Amino acid sequence: MKSAKSRKDRVVLDTSLFVNPEVRNDFGDSPTEAINGFLALAEQIPELEFYMPSSIFSELMNFVDQKKVPGSLMVHLRQKPPSKHELTCPAVLLYELIDEMRERTNKGLRIAEKAIRSVKDADEREVIQGMRKSYRVALREGILDSKEDVDLILLAKELDALLVTVDYGAIIWAEKLGVRWLLPTKFKDYLLSFIGDEDTSAGKS
Amino acid sequence: MKSAKSRKDRVVLDTSLFVNPEVRNDFGDSPTEAINGFLALAEQIPELEFYMPSSIFSELMNFVDQKKVPGSLMVHLRQKPPSKHELTCPAVLLYELIDEMRERTNKGLRIAEKAIRSVKDADEREVIQGMRKSYRVALREGILDSKEDVDLILLAKELDALLVTVDYGAIIWAEKLGVRWLLPTKFKDYLLSFIGDEDTSAGKS
Repeated sequence: MKSAKSRKDRVVLDTSLFVNPEVRNDFGDSPTEAINGFLALAEQIPELEFYMPSSIFSELMNFVDQKKVPGSLMVHLRQKPPSKHELTCPAVLLYELIDEMRERTNKGLRIAEKAIRSVKDADEREVIQGMRKSYRVALREGILDSKEDVDLILLAKELDALLVTVDYGAIIWAEKLGVRWLLPTKFKDYLLSFIGDEDTSAGKS
Repeated sequence: MKSAKSRKDRVVLDTSLFVNPEVRNDFGDSPTEAINGFLALAEQIPELEFYMPSSIFSELMNFVDQKKVPGSLMVHLRQKPPSKHELTCPAVLLYELIDEMRERTNKGLRIAEKAIRSVKDADEREVIQGMRKSYRVALREGILDSKEDVDLILLAKELDALLVTVDYGAIIWAEKLGVRWLLPTKFKDYLLSFIGDEDTSAGKS
């Protein structure tokens, strides 16, 4: 974190910072308040540039009262899609992705088989609900499973930015691609450390 | 195909050429005979270099009588893994892969739900067998679904080679990555066209 204090640095934010109740509370009691809480800090930190993939920003707007979100959000939280046609990914990661999906696909099949075998002695609706849950965990958790996740990790890579997310799949890919990452629970302290040091870092960027 | 005749060209082979009965028969009645049939032609074509990913070669060896495979196979069919740590893949393909997997994962879940609902009025074993089949088709067909498939497409890309395969998933990726491809059913004619033109192409490579 030391170098982040002495030069203009970039930060890519996931929605979880504002939406996930467990981490949002550092900034506000609702998504809208959390955005305002974040802005109040962000405006005091000229050393940092904040970004959000435009796809993730659209998701975020579904959670907030858009009339209460100030226009300065557009200034301090830049919406940018990654340059997906210019960026490349090491081919070795294709193997890892395909291998992992194959393993998970097989797990999904085992889960379906088990559910079919159990249904005769159980309530059909309950079996289907339980199966859905196990299936989703097996096939989706801890893996990049949406375009928005890919946007997040590629934008952080493109900008050489710090990625702030709780998404385990995105964190795993941050590790693969050499992207710095931080859990949102540490993010407020991270921001406050810039504000405390305002005098010493002024004029260095 | 014209340029392939006037310069040293490379060809990457899938096992289907020797193993799949529908296409193998051009070269021989069994995998071992098909290898020998291919070799008899390949040895007459100095203009071409033939390659097979080493992972695919290992698979092929499971289908043949290894004592009847001549040593010249190692000379005329080069085993080479792709340089997977040097090659890169356009990031936009990550989106396509993840989006397709997400769609297929959802299809798999619908198939499992349908099977659970149908089992009360049917034979459990039959339902499971039918579900397995539909699930595999939904999640695996027409997609790169194994490390060997990735080896095939990356080796062809690395060598700027012609890829000979019936695998639909590999063909789709050949199209994405700008890799030439040919169905094995056309491959014997392709080889024979070099042998017929031997005199005119000699010394040009």
